[in-house]
Order: sequence, then C-alpha cells, then structure tokens
Amino acid sequence: MKGKMVMNAAGREVLTEINGRPAVPFQGVGKHQPGGYKAAPPIPSCADYPQDGNKVVADLKTALQNVGIRDGMTISSHHHFRNGDLVANRVFDAAAELGVKDLRWFPSASFPCHAPLIAHLDSGVIHHIEGSMNGPLGEYASAGRMRGLGVLRSHGGRYQAIQDGEVHIDIAVIAAPTSDPFGNCNGVTGPSACGGLGFALADSQYADKVIVVTDNLVPFPCVPWQIMGNHVDAVVVTDKIGEPEKIVSGTTNITKSPDRLLIAELTARFVEAAGILRDGFSFQSGAGGTSLAFAIFLRDMMREKGIRARFVRGGSTQYLVDMLEEGLTDYILDGQTFDLAGVQSMRDNTHHIHTNPFVSYNYHNKGNIASMVDVVVLGATEVDVHFNANVVTHSDGRLLHGIGGWQNCLFSKCTILPIPSFRDRIPVIVDNVTTLCGPGELIDVIVTERGIAINPLRQDLIGATRHSGLPILPIEDIKREVESICGGAPDKPRCTDNVIAAIKWVDGTVIDVVRQV
Amino acid sequence: MKGKMVMNAAGREVLTEINGRPAVPFQGVGKHQPGGYKAAPPIPSCADYPQDGNKVVADLKTALQNVGIRDGMTISSHHHFRNGDLVANRVFDAAAELGVKDLRWFPSASFPCHAPLIAHLDSGVIHHIEGSMNGPLGEYASAGRMRGLGVLRSHGGRYQAIQDGEVHIDIAVIAAPTSDPFGNCNGVTGPSACGGLGFALADSQYADKVIVVTDNLVPFPCVPWQIMGNHVDAVVVTDKIGEPEKIVSGTTNITKSPDRLLIAELTARFVEAAGILRDGFSFQSGAGGTSLAFAIFLRDMMREKGIRARFVRGGSTQYLVDMLEEGLTDYILDGQTFDLAGVQSMRDNTHHIHTNPFVSYNYHNKGNIASMVDVVVLGATEVDVHFNANVVTHSDGRLLHGIGGWQNCLFSKCTILPIPSFRDRIPVIVDNVTTLCGPGELIDVIVTERGIAINPLRQDLIGATRHSGLPILPIEDIKREVESICGGAPDKPRCTDNVIAAIKWVDGTVIDVVRQV
Repeated sequence: MKGKMVMNAAGREVLTEINGRPAVPFQGVGKHQPGGYKAAPPIPSCADYPQDGNKVVADLKTALQNVGIRDGMTISSHHHFRNGDLVANRVFDAAAELGVKDLRWFPSASFPCHAPLIAHLDSGVIHHIEGSMNGPLGEYASAGRMRGLGVLRSHGGRYQAIQDGEVHIDIAVIAAPTSDPFGNCNGVTGPSACGGLGFALADSQYADKVIVVTDNLVPFPCVPWQIMGNHVDAVVVTDKIGEPEKIVSGTTNITKSPDRLLIAELTARFVEAAGILRDGFSFQSGAGGTSLAFAIFLRDMMREKGIRARFVRGGSTQYLVDMLEEGLTDYILDGQTFDLAGVQSMRDNTHHIHTNPFVSYNYHNKGNIASMVDVVVLGATEVDVHFNANVVTHSDGRLLHGIGGWQNCLFSKCTILPIPSFRDRIPVIVDNVTTLCGPGELIDVIVTERGIAINPLRQDLIGATRHSGLPILPIEDIKREVESICGGAPDKPRCTDNVIAAIKWVDGTVIDVVRQV
Repeated sequence: MKGKMVMNAAGREVLTEINGRPAVPFQGVGKHQPGGYKAAPPIPSCADYPQDGNKVVADLKTALQNVGIRDGMTISSHHHFRNGDLVANRVFDAAAELGVKDLRWFPSASFPCHAPLIAHLDSGVIHHIEGSMNGPLGEYASAGRMRGLGVLRSHGGRYQAIQDGEVHIDIAVIAAPTSDPFGNCNGVTGPSACGGLGFALADSQYADKVIVVTDNLVPFPCVPWQIMGNHVDAVVVTDKIGEPEKIVSGTTNITKSPDRLLIAELTARFVEAAGILRDGFSFQSGAGGTSLAFAIFLRDMMREKGIRARFVRGGSTQYLVDMLEEGLTDYILDGQTFDLAGVQSMRDNTHHIHTNPFVSYNYHNKGNIASMVDVVVLGATEVDVHFNANVVTHSDGRLLHGIGGWQNCLFSKCTILPIPSFRDRIPVIVDNVTTLCGPGELIDVIVTERGIAINPLRQDLIGATRHSGLPILPIEDIKREVESICGGAPDKPRCTDNVIAAIKWVDGTVIDVVRQV
C-alpha cells in the first residue's frame, strides 16, 4: 500500500500521493481549478546547435548519451505505430547497455509488442510505467510486479500533465516515418507512414531533450512538419521504425454479429430521433466493429435525408474517407489514422486535418474540440446504474486497456455508449463499476441489444425521443433482464488492498485506483 | 537620460536598465548564454470557457473589458496588414474610452497608418511603444517626445523576448482575415486575406489573454488554423480589419534604376562565382526593387544552368510564386506575403509553406531556418569599413525604420548587402555606422555600383571569386571613391545625450541605443 487513501467526490478511495508526488483527489466535473502556471522548459540557444541544421547522430545509444541519459530520468515514447512499434524496446535496450537504472517510461500507450520490456522492469532498468498498458504490461502491473504505481491518463490528460508540469519529461523519443536532418518530421510520408504524430506534440514542446528516430531521412525541409525540428536535439536514422502492417491493416472490419449490428442501428436511429442529425452537425465514433457499423447506418441516413456534416472526428478509416470524398462532411479532424486510406487521405486531402491532443482534448485549455462535437459513440467494459463507466479493467479487476481519448470525448454534447448487455455471460451493466473512468453525469445514453437507457439528467433527450418507437427503458430494467439471463450479477473482483495503478481524470485529479488481483 | 551606460562587446555605450527592467549588454555573437526557463503562461481550464466553443462578444470594447484591461498593461498587435491595418488604432481608441492609461504597446511593427496613436501617446493612454516604428512614430520618438524608451527587436528577437519572459503580454489583439467563433483563424482566406499570421504566434502562445478581431466569421472549423483557437479568449466581428490594397498592391515593382540593376546583377554574378548556385541550394531576398531584380537575374541563371533550389525563403511575391510553379524551387518557406499572388499561392499550393518567427528566426531555439539558408540578400541604411550595418536610423540620426527579420537573416551561410554607395549625395559606406544593428562578423559581402567588398573574415569567398572578373575591391577603396564624389564623409548626426530607444540583438542583449535628434 502506497500513500494515504481519501474518499474523492465520486465516492472512490484514492491516493493522495503517487510515486512520491502529491495527488489531488477528483473534485467533480469542472470543479478543480488548476491555478498556477504551465511548465517552463529550459531556454536553449542556437549557438549550441549545428548552424547547418544537421543533427544526425550515429545511433540511438549515441543520441541517448549525447542528451545526457542517467538514472531516474523520464523517457517518453508514442503509440503512433500501436502494436507495430519497433523503437520503444530499442530505447530501453540501449539504456540497459549504458547501465542506466530506474527510468520512468512515459508512453502515450503501450501494446503487446512491448512485452519484452518486462525484462527491463524486472532488471531495474525501468522503474515503472505511466501510460496506458494494453495487455501483457497491464497483466504485469495487475499482478503487483511493478515497483512504482502505474498512472493512466487520457490523451488529453497526458497533454495536460505535461503542460502543467505534473510530468517532467527528460528525454522524448519520437519514431517518425519521415524526418529531415533538422528534426522536422511527419507520419504521412515514407515507407512506414502511420498518419499523424500528434501524440508526441506535448513531448516535443516540453521535454528537455528530444530525439527523432526515422527510417526515411529527406533533405530539409520535411513537409509537412507535424513535429517542428526546432524542438529536436538529435536525429537517428535506422532501418525500420515500425511495422505498418500492424498499424494500418487495410480496411477495419464492420461487425458481423447480429446483436452488435442491432446496437449500431439503434444508436443511429437514436441520433436521428433526438434531432442531432441535422445539416452542419458533427460526430465522432471509433474504429471498432460496432462504431464502424454505426457510422455506416448514419451515413445511409445522411444520404437519404441529404444531410452534410460540418466535421467528423477521426480515428479515421476508409469509411470516413469515403464520406469526406462523397461530400457527406466538410472536414475530418483526425487524431489517429486507423488504416491506409486514412493515412493517404490525411496526406493528400486538405480537408482531412491532422489534430493533436492539445487542440482536441486538453482540458486545461481555453476550450477544446471535444466539447463541440454533437454526438460521440464510445465503448466501455462496464457501466453502472448511475451511468458511470469503466474502460480500463475487466470485471475480474485485471487492468488490460488504456483510456485513449475516451474520457475527453465524454464532453461531447451527447455521449452514447453502444455496448452489448453481457460478454461471455458476464453482465456489462452493474451496480458499481469496478474502476471508475467516466462519471455518469457525462454519459447520456447506453444502447444495448435489449434496449436504450437515457440518463435521467438528460430530460431533453428523454423528451425528444419519447414518441420515437425506440425501445427506451430504465437502466435498472435492462440490468435486471440481463442478470436473469446470466444468472445474477458478476462476481466481485478478488483484489488485495495493494494499489497498483491510479486513474487520472482529464484535469489531473485522481478519479479511481486499481488494485492488485 | 535613463539608467547607467556601459560599453558593450561591440564598443557601443548601452543602457543596463530599460523601462525599469535590467538589460544585458551585447556580449558578442553567440556569446550570451541565456540560462533560465521559458515564460510560463497561466493554466486555463475548459470549465471557464463556453462548451459550444462560441467566444464571440459584441465588440472590441466589451472584449477588452471582459479580459480585464487596466492601467499599465502590455497590449500587442501585428503588422500583417502593414500600412493598411485598421485594428490597432481602434484598440487604443477603445482603451481611451474605457479610461485606461499608461499602456505599453507592443506591436510586431508600426507604420504611418498608426500616426493617430500619437494623440494617445500625448494623452497618456499609451506610455510607450516597444516595436519597430516606421515613419511618424519613429520621428515622434526621435524628437524625445515618448515617455518610455522605444525597444526595437527583430522578428526573431520579438519571439525570443516573449518566449523568454522579457516581455509579458497581458492582452494580444490579433487581426484575422478569417476566424471561427472558437478563435481558430488564418490570413489566407476572406475578403481581407493578407497571407500568414505568423507574427502573432508567440503572442497567442504566451499572452495571458488573446482577442481575435475578424471581418470574416466562418463556422468551426476555420481551416487552416494558423492561430489555434485554443489560445483565444474572445472573438470580435467587425466590418473591416484592414485595407488589402495597402498590403497586397498587385505585383511589387522591380527597380528601373540602372545603378540598382547593376548592383542586382553583380550580386547574382557573385553568388554564381562563389559556387553557391548549385542544385538544392537556398536563398532569401526581400521584396524591395533591388532584391527583386537580383531574384530575376538569379532565376535566369538557374534556368540557363538547369539548377533547382531546395527552398526559397519569402517574403513572397509573384516572382517567387512563378519560380515555384515553374519548378525552379521545391518549396517557398514564407513568413510574409507581399502581394496577392503570394497570398493565393500560400493558400493553394502545398509547397508554399507558412512559417513563423519561431521556426525561422528565434535564436533561443534548438536551431532555426535562418542559419540553413545558403545566401541572403538584404538592405541597409549604412555600412561601415568593419562591415557593421545599420537598418534603423538615417545618417542624421533619425529613427525611421524597423529591423524586421534583418538581424535574424545575418546568420545565413552568406550574407550580402547590395546597396548604392550613396543616397541623396550622402555616402552609405562610413567609418562607423550611426546605429549598430548587425555586427560586421556576420556580414560577408557589400555589393555597390562601384565594386564588391568581401569581408576579410571570409577568405573562402575571396579565394572562390578571385578569378571571377568581378570588380572586387577593399571596402576602404570604395569608401574613398564615394567620398571624393560626395565631397567627404557625411556629417555626424546632431544628437543630444538623451537615449530614446534601445536596439536589441537576437539574443535579447542590447547592441546599441538611439539618441534624441
């Protein structure tokens, strides 16, 4: 057990200290006033950088040495390659060769491809991870094997934490599909093109030192420069930075499950019934099977009614690109491309805009895009009768997923979670979510194959859809039916008292913790 | 006389205190180590901004009130409209109506159109101006009529001063040809399109409060967003923000003067003889008559030799746009468009890149574009036998010009000043420049109609051009000949001891001062 526990505004017991730094308990949505000033990076001087702009060094190890890597530093990396990343593991291999210990790894997200880092966690090269842990590293943390506390943040929360000085990055390593010798780089060109590099923006702006690793060096200027070379200290050229086949796997697949198709259709019909589907509207939906199916149903409705969106927020796929090219939306505002069509469109279509967590999601900002989106469609591992939702743990308590932009998207004008009412005969609607990631007051609608539940706080939506003929039910009724099918509520997770991770809210406060299984 | 005077590394007497803050004397090129940390703006919260992203307020006065304008604040504005700006005067008219006093005006540059502000300087609404003063406001300061000290900075120096916290902006007012209600804005679209808005970037990032004033409001998202709405507090919609005819006056004119044409041709021939004109090279030249003529001579040489530039730095004009479209350069990297062709090209051609003083010029940076340019062609009001140059005062001591990007460009690999050897029968080559703006060690070549002088520090250029047949002479010889024509050296300026302005070097140190005439 690390630090003192207090009850936060959501009724969750959370830590007041995380990895040796004080932490603020969640105060309620919009209640925490940050105060203070943004992080202030050291002032560099052109006198200390090559006048000809050539920052290329021999290899990653040399680059890490040149920027002064040492014990206890924070090293960041990014998940633009998702499960096809080849750079993060090499960073820590190089650190191990240099004999460096106790590093904090601060990825924008980690994936199963990073499982080899468990060896560096065990050996002490890495002290702990702060960042989403999808799969094996989450299992590792859940088993209580990580020395420090895991800290999970949304994409916007990660930007916020860096911007506000909560997390000071000593060295950022940015894997870039194309770079020039000055460090201007992008993700839309080159043999490993992956789309945008927006998740690395905060790191480039606030880290003391920035290393770009590329497998496609072009003469200055690399255009577009999604990351500005003016923030970069060293450029490393290597053979291969990522496996595009693992990030951009052709076209993502629409669900074939009849239940999921029904959920997707109900979601689209709800959007129409609620009056959201009108000229100039905007929406965001993910790249999962149900979300994609929803987008297809919505597209068909838009065609039929002659409705054009002002913008669609990506994660982009072939489907969104088709909508843009067909004129069903003026713009795609895209944080992350999920297939090759998305990458090409971001590169070639001036109406397919590369965004980043600063403009889209950062809550310590003078507004952001997320709250301007008319309707957002998101997933969840669990929801409860108070409309609270969980995206990081399973009902057995294991930490297996990251937050992504999920928390940030909840600020949309209408947040809908289309989810199956049970998975593997385990009910998804529960009395209290295992881990609280999103407060119920921000979650407006739950769509299941057994009915649609509207948050009582949204009387406007209840009124608008009253005569729609849609199967709108109290959430308790859906829960009761599901439990009767599954033979009762799910078992409580069997956890120890040992806290292994903290879940941050978008404003940097602690909304919940995760315990050892 | 304000503050103590000390001798700086360039042998100039400068102040150690400017407008109540300590100032560092110039230490030599690349010698001043900044240390410390960048400015840290207050952390805002989305909770305090409209969730629907609509920040439009009734008018400028309301906006200034809402952001809390009060006595002694620093208000910034920008010169994207140059002499056609209609916004800055209105800002101070509104401040006067609100009864606010002692403001510091921090424009990126001021022009004759801002002469009405003299009334606000006299009445005490404006305390003093820090920024280039072209024409009447320079005369006003030169006459000793301004209460505070004028501070002149280069475009890069202005970014540096804001970034480093030397100048804290309370309220930035950005005149934007197109904006959305969130404050995303650009200069490439709309009836008052002027090109880029790069000079306002630092202000948007570091000012406490940011007001966008537009005459073309579009629905969110305004694309491209050269300034991000996430930095903006309020949007004001008005009838007309600038007079495009005064910024984009069709095509800028090439000089017709035989002497200037000769200077331009000699400059181009020098660039060729020095071996700079090769595939993949880069150059920057201004939009003045001689610079344009140089670009035309260079273009013809490039065509003849089949040479293609990698990039050309703008100020863009029809001529540069033609070169881009003809394939004579891969890219235009453009800080400021000087005609309509430039504006349209920046809007439509993905190889015409909008830059800003951060990426191009800021010296407190991990490198910048300026030092990567192979050759730059600049003007000057005076040069001396040590190759020092002046761009702000005339030889009579009057402060009539701004610095622009001039100091920043001196870091090019080869800096050439093509200038007439005398103007109005006053020699331009002197023993010591009236005001030191650029140290001689950075100025490589002076081209006059009477011969070319190469800085003895550049033995490489002297060697490369020895057998070129070009009229290469010691600078003293050219000076002697000019004095024999003009009847001697120019008279010393008749100045008092009263210092009326300081000239900053690119690193924030004081390179010289200007005295009352």
